[in-house]
Amino acid sequence: MELKSVIGIYEDFPKQGISFKDINSLIADPMAFKQAIDEMTKVAKALDASLIAIPESRGYIFGAPIAYQLGAGLVPVRKPGKLPGEVVSEEYDLEYGSNTIEIQKKLIKPGDRIVLVDDLLATGGTMMAAVKLIEKLGGQIAGLITLIELTELGGRELLKDYFIHSLVTYQY
Amino acid sequence: MELKSVIGIYEDFPKQGISFKDINSLIADPMAFKQAIDEMTKVAKALDASLIAIPESRGYIFGAPIAYQLGAGLVPVRKPGKLPGEVVSEEYDLEYGSNTIEIQKKLIKPGDRIVLVDDLLATGGTMMAAVKLIEKLGGQIAGLITLIELTELGGRELLKDYFIHSLVTYQY
Repeated sequence: MELKSVIGIYEDFPKQGISFKDINSLIADPMAFKQAIDEMTKVAKALDASLIAIPESRGYIFGAPIAYQLGAGLVPVRKPGKLPGEVVSEEYDLEYGSNTIEIQKKLIKPGDRIVLVDDLLATGGTMMAAVKLIEKLGGQIAGLITLIELTELGGRELLKDYFIHSLVTYQY
Repeated sequence: MELKSVIGIYEDFPKQGISFKDINSLIADPMAFKQAIDEMTKVAKALDASLIAIPESRGYIFGAPIAYQLGAGLVPVRKPGKLPGEVVSEEYDLEYGSNTIEIQKKLIKPGDRIVLVDDLLATGGTMMAAVKLIEKLGGQIAGLITLIELTELGGRELLKDYFIHSLVTYQY
């Protein structure tokens, strides 16, 4: 199946100038969802990681079935204030303002090999911040897997030191 | 494995008086995560649903692998402003203030059988709002599955018209 055929496009959502890629029709379609997970799992398996890191919240949808299939553990990458216990934080710039993400310290040990899984690679800001968090804790990035990549937005260039696999590309 | 042994407890998080159940050590443990997903999948399979509805964001972690295993589709239940296109909304009361959740209209057809999957059943406010949204669209609730149930908080009573299965219980 051509996965693009089940991804919706909404112009000017959530704001003017954004061509929003809606993955909800894909994940609601059992055949399309299975195909996406199977392709991503195959790549993740080759990267030989023991943990799958998943940015909140759409990364969870793809990362959780992959981790289940591989027998790997899951490490949520969350917005501030959601995680109890000791956390490490990373702030990164947005077009207007900034965001912060956090990981629990206890979940990553030095030397752990980790694959990052998300729905979308655009500017790469969130992914790069997640990479930095994982490396702060001594984790090794085995690679990045995304369903969609927006090729004109610079994410691959920003993350050029890392292996990246995306299933579907759009320019922006 | 006793799943409780890999659930962390943090008192007074995120605020005074809350005994927070931390599922992150469970999902980071491949054996525990597999056991939880397998048990939930077995129950979901018996409920014979074509769709799994998943409240944002921890519901995604359990609902996505279950949907993958069963060959079912996923319907995200999200906070306002996250979903493009036509949505239905439901507001519900919190201890202080209120929350709103949304579902895309296009994802549910009258007669669809749907299982709701989340990490936690406490007061049942979010679950009940999700049930109402699904029923507004003509969907049938086949049942509710949660990892954790806090039995003293009234969720099971509020949702007494529905089948509920939880894997682990605490009083509060």
